[in-house]
Amino acid sequence: MSDTKEPLFNRIALIGIGLIGSSLARATKQRGLAGEIVACARSKATRDIVMELGIVDAVYETPVEAVQDADLIILCTPVSTYADLAQAMSPALKPGTIVSDVGSVKESVIRDVGPHLPDGVHFVPGHPIAGTEHSGPEAGFAELFDGRWCILTPPVGTNAAALAKITTYWEALGSMVEIMTPHHHDKVLAITSHLPHLIAYTIVGTATDLEESQQADVVKFSAGGFRDFTRIAASDPIMWRDVFLNNREAVLEMLQRFSEDLSVLQRAVRWGEGDILEDRFRKTRDIRRGIVDAHQAGTFDAREPDNDGN
Amino acid sequence: MSDTKEPLFNRIALIGIGLIGSSLARATKQRGLAGEIVACARSKATRDIVMELGIVDAVYETPVEAVQDADLIILCTPVSTYADLAQAMSPALKPGTIVSDVGSVKESVIRDVGPHLPDGVHFVPGHPIAGTEHSGPEAGFAELFDGRWCILTPPVGTNAAALAKITTYWEALGSMVEIMTPHHHDKVLAITSHLPHLIAYTIVGTATDLEESQQADVVKFSAGGFRDFTRIAASDPIMWRDVFLNNREAVLEMLQRFSEDLSVLQRAVRWGEGDILEDRFRKTRDIRRGIVDAHQAGTFDAREPDNDGN
Repeated sequence: MSDTKEPLFNRIALIGIGLIGSSLARATKQRGLAGEIVACARSKATRDIVMELGIVDAVYETPVEAVQDADLIILCTPVSTYADLAQAMSPALKPGTIVSDVGSVKESVIRDVGPHLPDGVHFVPGHPIAGTEHSGPEAGFAELFDGRWCILTPPVGTNAAALAKITTYWEALGSMVEIMTPHHHDKVLAITSHLPHLIAYTIVGTATDLEESQQADVVKFSAGGFRDFTRIAASDPIMWRDVFLNNREAVLEMLQRFSEDLSVLQRAVRWGEGDILEDRFRKTRDIRRGIVDAHQAGTFDAREPDNDGN
Repeated sequence: MSDTKEPLFNRIALIGIGLIGSSLARATKQRGLAGEIVACARSKATRDIVMELGIVDAVYETPVEAVQDADLIILCTPVSTYADLAQAMSPALKPGTIVSDVGSVKESVIRDVGPHLPDGVHFVPGHPIAGTEHSGPEAGFAELFDGRWCILTPPVGTNAAALAKITTYWEALGSMVEIMTPHHHDKVLAITSHLPHLIAYTIVGTATDLEESQQADVVKFSAGGFRDFTRIAASDPIMWRDVFLNNREAVLEMLQRFSEDLSVLQRAVRWGEGDILEDRFRKTRDIRRGIVDAHQAGTFDAREPDNDGN
């Protein structure tokens, strides 16, 4: 790659600059993928932080200012804001502009954003499977998307060149790109991400309600498995509220299946049916092996004494 | 410490030499805490592996052989085997010998082991809050207990010198020792360890039953939260079967609380009650902060892109 190579985009506008938006800003800059990176943040406090961090060239209060002359716009706010944002920025969008996002649900995003975009603007929704439990522009880092999947869910009839370009962008950020229908995305993520978060929030909440004498010891002896749940349950509350409000059917379906399966184990515990428990516990090892084989097991040392294995 | 110092124990016998037993052997040897370390393993294959690993001085087929002349005996097998083991080794136990264990439940252990021990033998049950999802003698390592809690649950009337000696032993292995009643232990561990494991086994099982078209993508996109559950659910099936069979009341009580709390969130998802979801999600952040403050958050980098935070 020569230094004089044209960047992939002239101007990228990031609408919202929290963990994901600020990581995109850092990664885009580091890899020279945009001539200019601008952001939009509603609160002055966030705008001040972002300018101090020096991760974008400019930051604006309103979306209509931020998207001026941008050839790529990425929505990085909670998905409940998308409809209003799309409406607000719509008058400033020129034909050929690509609009994308990073939301954790995809059917509702297409429903909310699509109708507001003028003809000739290409909408390619996306979802990087990357993140941490930390929030805000200070929490971002340039390597967040490295070696991670990014799912794109182009609506039927999406411009092929626009899809190719956004694919190139994510690959340049280090991600592996997968294309699927929004419906399939929402089903798969309901079980791999949304339900685990709902359960983690629940069990941490259950522990929070315990008698005070047990409360302190829950924190102290959390290494037995619980602390993994607390990490998941420390994720951004607004973002996750919006996920559940916008992927209701798939989440409720997976939750129903989970509850049935939990009842079976609960009954086995109550009646001392060890063979049912053992049989169920054996089966789940295979799926872990699949994840380890697929190199998605995470970067922590496999030997890390993290759960209570004795 | 001078080289000529007497080791804490003359002969330690480890009954069972899987992940925890073999880690104890390694750590005890490394820190010079025993004149001799012997083990007991029922299967010839395990005995061969253990001798090849060179982590003990001798390995026996039967507990009665292994405990000969031992001044510390630690049960490191699944808790369902304890009653038979205690009965089998009982004739070979001399007054003054300390018997301990590493089981994840404590009331049932006292019920199963206590009655079989001759007078003058000191029983001090223990539970190191340490482990990995891996099993077997090859999976152990000397640092497993370093910086981890070990809970001791001495029955009323336990010999003070024996309790002090076993406390010294665990501290020499790098652990922090906490003493509590077996009842309190079983309650606290039900929420911090047993319920998280039951839930993790359940959700990974639910995913295993999905339609084939979704199955592959569950593995592929597991980074969204699910893979943390798969790690927990890869733990030893026999050990965990025994935990649930032996801590039934506490597990069922915590499970009942969890199910009630999950129903509240499920209802909020169904009826689109965003304020209830957001409120609940906010509350759980505090308990995570408590864990981070207590330095029990684990050794992984807090920035590790491990769950789906966008």
